[in-house]
Amino acid sequence: MSTELSPQRLRATLTAAVDASLEAQGLSSPNPPVGAVILDADGTVAGVGHTQPVGGPHAEVMALRVAGERARGGTAVVTLEPCNHTGRTGPCSQALLDAGIGRVYYGVADPNPQAAGGASTLVAAGVSVHGGADLDPTLTDIVESGPLRTWLHRQRTGRPLVTVKMAATVDGRIAAPDGTSRWITGPRARAHAHEQRGRIDAIIVGTGTVVADDPALTARTPDGDLRPHQPTRVILGTREIGSGAKIFDDAAPTIQVRSHDPRAVLDALDDALWVLVEGGPSIIGAFFDTDLVDEVDLYLAPAVLGAGPAAVDMASTSTIADLRRFVFGEPQRLGDDLLITLRR
Amino acid sequence: MSTELSPQRLRATLTAAVDASLEAQGLSSPNPPVGAVILDADGTVAGVGHTQPVGGPHAEVMALRVAGERARGGTAVVTLEPCNHTGRTGPCSQALLDAGIGRVYYGVADPNPQAAGGASTLVAAGVSVHGGADLDPTLTDIVESGPLRTWLHRQRTGRPLVTVKMAATVDGRIAAPDGTSRWITGPRARAHAHEQRGRIDAIIVGTGTVVADDPALTARTPDGDLRPHQPTRVILGTREIGSGAKIFDDAAPTIQVRSHDPRAVLDALDDALWVLVEGGPSIIGAFFDTDLVDEVDLYLAPAVLGAGPAAVDMASTSTIADLRRFVFGEPQRLGDDLLITLRR
Ligand SMILES: NC(=O)c1ccc[n+]([C@@H]2O[C@H](COP(=O)([O-])OP(=O)(O)OC[C@H]3O[C@@H](n4cnc5c(N)ncnc54)[C@H](OP(=O)(O)O)[C@@H]3O)[C@@H](O)[C@H]2O)c1
Ligand SMILES: NC(=O)c1ccc[n+]([C@@H]2O[C@H](COP(=O)([O-])OP(=O)(O)OC[C@H]3O[C@@H](n4cnc5c(N)ncnc54)[C@H](OP(=O)(O)O)[C@@H]3O)[C@@H](O)[C@H]2O)c1
Repeated sequence: MSTELSPQRLRATLTAAVDASLEAQGLSSPNPPVGAVILDADGTVAGVGHTQPVGGPHAEVMALRVAGERARGGTAVVTLEPCNHTGRTGPCSQALLDAGIGRVYYGVADPNPQAAGGASTLVAAGVSVHGGADLDPTLTDIVESGPLRTWLHRQRTGRPLVTVKMAATVDGRIAAPDGTSRWITGPRARAHAHEQRGRIDAIIVGTGTVVADDPALTARTPDGDLRPHQPTRVILGTREIGSGAKIFDDAAPTIQVRSHDPRAVLDALDDALWVLVEGGPSIIGAFFDTDLVDEVDLYLAPAVLGAGPAAVDMASTSTIADLRRFVFGEPQRLGDDLLITLRR
Repeated sequence: MSTELSPQRLRATLTAAVDASLEAQGLSSPNPPVGAVILDADGTVAGVGHTQPVGGPHAEVMALRVAGERARGGTAVVTLEPCNHTGRTGPCSQALLDAGIGRVYYGVADPNPQAAGGASTLVAAGVSVHGGADLDPTLTDIVESGPLRTWLHRQRTGRPLVTVKMAATVDGRIAAPDGTSRWITGPRARAHAHEQRGRIDAIIVGTGTVVADDPALTARTPDGDLRPHQPTRVILGTREIGSGAKIFDDAAPTIQVRSHDPRAVLDALDDALWVLVEGGPSIIGAFFDTDLVDEVDLYLAPAVLGAGPAAVDMASTSTIADLRRFVFGEPQRLGDDLLITLRR
């Protein structure tokens, strides 16, 4: 029989499962990006897996395949409660039973009534199950602040998590008066932003940015190659964009939402878990104005410009009571720059 | 005889001397803000001191007074080479000899030819002396990045160290379009800024800020009381300011420099070691434009405004090549806000 994991071992294994789930971000949508680790009966890691693209196996099944016979009498540590639902793939609860898993830990309970019930099925079959509210809240936090937060956000609110990205000087400028902005931030910050593009479902810009900069808005490696996952490119605004614009190349799908309402974009992206608003200032302002911003990623350069457009342009602001407040996360150094995150 | 200090002990004692010198900042100008620690023959701390206001005793003499007879056969650890100069006070080298100090450590050599030579005087009298270039460079760094940096800067450049202070949102706004700005940053950030005002020699603003905000520009405690040291208030600009303005109250001296040239302000402050440029955006821009900014202290609020004046307004900027680059220090959390420092 598999024995209970020590608190330290459980923390480390759950963190490994969260790390594995990073690989699923962007690829798994609209399914949750889940990570799973299988330990054999001796507590040694026997398999690690993450959710595959829609129609492919879930994280538990991937990890069980790697573990093979070593799963028998072992323990599964999963970020989300194993599903109980026979959709395009069989239920994960059954796969864990078939593999002879004796104990299951999961980070958060499945809030989706169609898929929930995996834990009860496992308990009914004699498996020891610990998860969700039974766990130390700091363990639940590790999961809820990881990749799964985008999916949990969609479950709770019915819309994707919205992150605004800005790359600015300390005086808040994103470009010089003549429109030039190459490069305010350095190569480490730019590489980080491209990595993030490779994990999101959609990247949103206004027609103003498309007309001014003709950006490709693809997710690339530092060598310039396309990353395996490309977000959908979304243009917000009514102006006609010429079909020769880079944003209409074959590298990724592109849609235009002919509206001035940020909600219309989110409605058009009903499979998306996580979207990034990259600019310009008017579109970013419109998202703040409609209270749709969940997070801000500010790439801050140790520099001053003294003129040029600010990162956010919000016509509705007139007095200090119009300030929109967030909470800072831990600043992170990226080469010469800082990544400053804000959350609700 | 006093024995050599272990590297750890020397580091800790030199750090204590730097901490003591913080108390001298603003008060000692134009003399250097120095800190000194006297250890008795057993290596126990017997006295700590810092430079007193002009005409008063230097740090070594203050620390020796506290130590009294315990200084005999002991060790002195001082941030700056003891002076050899009989000015308004006697030379510190002589005071150390009179007290029977057997060993002296100092952080940096005195670059001022009039005062230098303290180390040689001590060596000639049989004292063991270690300092300046003899020390591990990481020890010199502790001193050179402490309060003494302002005085060293003046010695090297002939002008005070210039710090620009800004309190802004992440989109770089210092006020709303209607001019309101209370409060972008929180109480911890404001208290920190007032503590800093209590350590500087002068606080510089433009006539625009005086006319718009009628600020007092005093250094106050969180209870609203005046701090012991008040910086000189300096107004830059040609407009006449009514004598009823708060900036002309009795709390601190005030001067107006009727010019548009930031260098004219620094010339007028020939005793100052450290000045703070507090605004508004035009004056801050003028200091950047003339390349007179040594440090920036950005109090960043986790908030967005979307409209209102930016922290820096520099008419000369037209393209991205006009970017002024600095280097970030370690970000520091102040309540809900962040203090982000930039240095040359
Ligand atoms: N340095 C950087 O990181 C960076 C990043 C992005 C952009 N930029 C710069 O930003 C500048 C463009 O700024 P921008 O503000 O014009 O661009 P934008 O925000 O991309 O686009 C503004 C346009 O979007 C449409 N729109 C849709 N919904 C709107 C709403 N709710 N409110 C207002 N407009 C809405 C309008 O166009 P329609 O008339 O078509 O409806 C509007 O003119 C360019 O110079 C670009 O270089 C810089
Ligand atoms: N929230 C905050 O933390 C904060 C802090 C400070 C200021 N502010 C805001 O900033 C606004 C004032 O902005 P501002 O830019 O007008 O104020 P400013 O920079 O304080 O003053 C500008 C004035 O200084 C004079 N001046 C001197 N040298 C100059 C130079 N080289 N270049 C340009 N002007 C020079 C000019 O006046 P003369 O015609 O008299 O020569 C000019 O009009 C106010 O609304 C205030 O509330 C906010």
